[in-house]
Amino acid sequence: MPPVILINGEAADSVPALDRGLQFGDGVFRTIAVSAGRPLNWVNQHARLASDCNALGLACPESELLAAEIATVAPNAATVKIILTRGPAGRGYGIPAEARATRMVAAFDAPEYDAKLAVEGVRVRLCTLRLAVQPRLAGVKSLNRLENVLARSEWRDRTIHEGLLCDGEGRAIEGTMSNIFVVHKGHLVTPRLDRCGVAGAQRDRVRQLAASLDEECEEVDLGIEEIMKADEVFLTNSLIRLWPVREIDGRAFKPGPVARVIREAILAQEARDVLVA
Amino acid sequence: MPPVILINGEAADSVPALDRGLQFGDGVFRTIAVSAGRPLNWVNQHARLASDCNALGLACPESELLAAEIATVAPNAATVKIILTRGPAGRGYGIPAEARATRMVAAFDAPEYDAKLAVEGVRVRLCTLRLAVQPRLAGVKSLNRLENVLARSEWRDRTIHEGLLCDGEGRAIEGTMSNIFVVHKGHLVTPRLDRCGVAGAQRDRVRQLAASLDEECEEVDLGIEEIMKADEVFLTNSLIRLWPVREIDGRAFKPGPVARVIREAILAQEARDVLVA
Repeated sequence: MPPVILINGEAADSVPALDRGLQFGDGVFRTIAVSAGRPLNWVNQHARLASDCNALGLACPESELLAAEIATVAPNAATVKIILTRGPAGRGYGIPAEARATRMVAAFDAPEYDAKLAVEGVRVRLCTLRLAVQPRLAGVKSLNRLENVLARSEWRDRTIHEGLLCDGEGRAIEGTMSNIFVVHKGHLVTPRLDRCGVAGAQRDRVRQLAASLDEECEEVDLGIEEIMKADEVFLTNSLIRLWPVREIDGRAFKPGPVARVIREAILAQEARDVLVA
Repeated sequence: MPPVILINGEAADSVPALDRGLQFGDGVFRTIAVSAGRPLNWVNQHARLASDCNALGLACPESELLAAEIATVAPNAATVKIILTRGPAGRGYGIPAEARATRMVAAFDAPEYDAKLAVEGVRVRLCTLRLAVQPRLAGVKSLNRLENVLARSEWRDRTIHEGLLCDGEGRAIEGTMSNIFVVHKGHLVTPRLDRCGVAGAQRDRVRQLAASLDEECEEVDLGIEEIMKADEVFLTNSLIRLWPVREIDGRAFKPGPVARVIREAILAQEARDVLVA
């Protein structure tokens, strides 16, 4: 059995109680699909990790080091979560000069999603919770994720697959665990994430693939009423890849051609990622 | 040497890597001054802990259990931090039915503040960061504290003792580690914390003491320009107790009689707390 968790490169299953990741959520993370020991969409994943570290003033480990640790904990297919924190320190918000980051690379079983969801689409509800506006943390996948926890606890119905989150002014931002794309008046768009929300690495990839298919995807302000009038709506993250939406709060949508083409492009790229040694 | 940290009642110095406190900041905390093994202002501290647990749907441990653990880690004078998290779990925001809370009680040295600060007052700066509005978490001392970390890292000048935080509309809310009180047109007031901010247990005590001194303290919306015109400004938390403010960004204030009387009332109450066995 390979170690399931590496902490600063050593097999471990615990972190110091005084780690600032626990004390304040002072850190960032990424969730990564792994196939044959290779992290998928890794260039985008590492770029986002580096950008998030920069937002908090953390040093980001080199791509090669992290990829090697991923291969160690997940030699086969799995989900890997990377957490980078400010490390252990004394009490108080001030960042001590001697703070040494904690690097955690942990393997989990890949989630078993029903394959039909990717074809027939998923059911979505509108969450009551409104995302708070904090430009300093917008887009960053930080360890401050209580909004997502509270939003995800709004429903227990297992036939609802995701909750859609708006900001206080009714702009659609993201799902609790995914980013959202919309085909609106013939154009593929996705919400701007400069005031709140988390910018997924899969979102980056979808925008790149769309551009390569001559379907430039703009970032826009998108009211929930515009989403309700959309031709297609789909959700993305690194584990689901892409799910078309078939319903939001009773309004039906048809899984459409843009979602299908982009999903196929994601799967083709993942197959190439694994083949290229 | 007593154990410095108890985790679920056992001496320990680490927490499970998959604790949701680390993964998502899914938990709450309180910082408590301890004298002769007794937690000061404990009735307010435990009430706030219970109220914060309620906001997240966590079970709050009984007052007696926590007080006994505080006495174990801090038989003398110290600072104790209590952290309550949702406990270890698998990946994903959904709260598993089997989640078992983690209870941490950790002792630290009491901070050595210069005693002159309580008499002559402290220097304060206005922070650039604006607090995000999230009514669902307003007042709660959750483990999502990145705003405080970022705000505290705005200055390094050691002659500046605290940073003042406003919301996006310019209302003054709190200090990075303290609550703020203002004597405005002869009345003692403190900012409402129903949109953002952390409600300190010391803030509760100050309002109770003020009421007992016939100085009812109202919660109000308070623009930064009103603070700049105030007769007195002071800061409170459980460790500093009460500091008058002598300067905010170059505007000078005089430490005043309301701050002095309330600080003396705090110290008198603490002395009684320790004497009553």
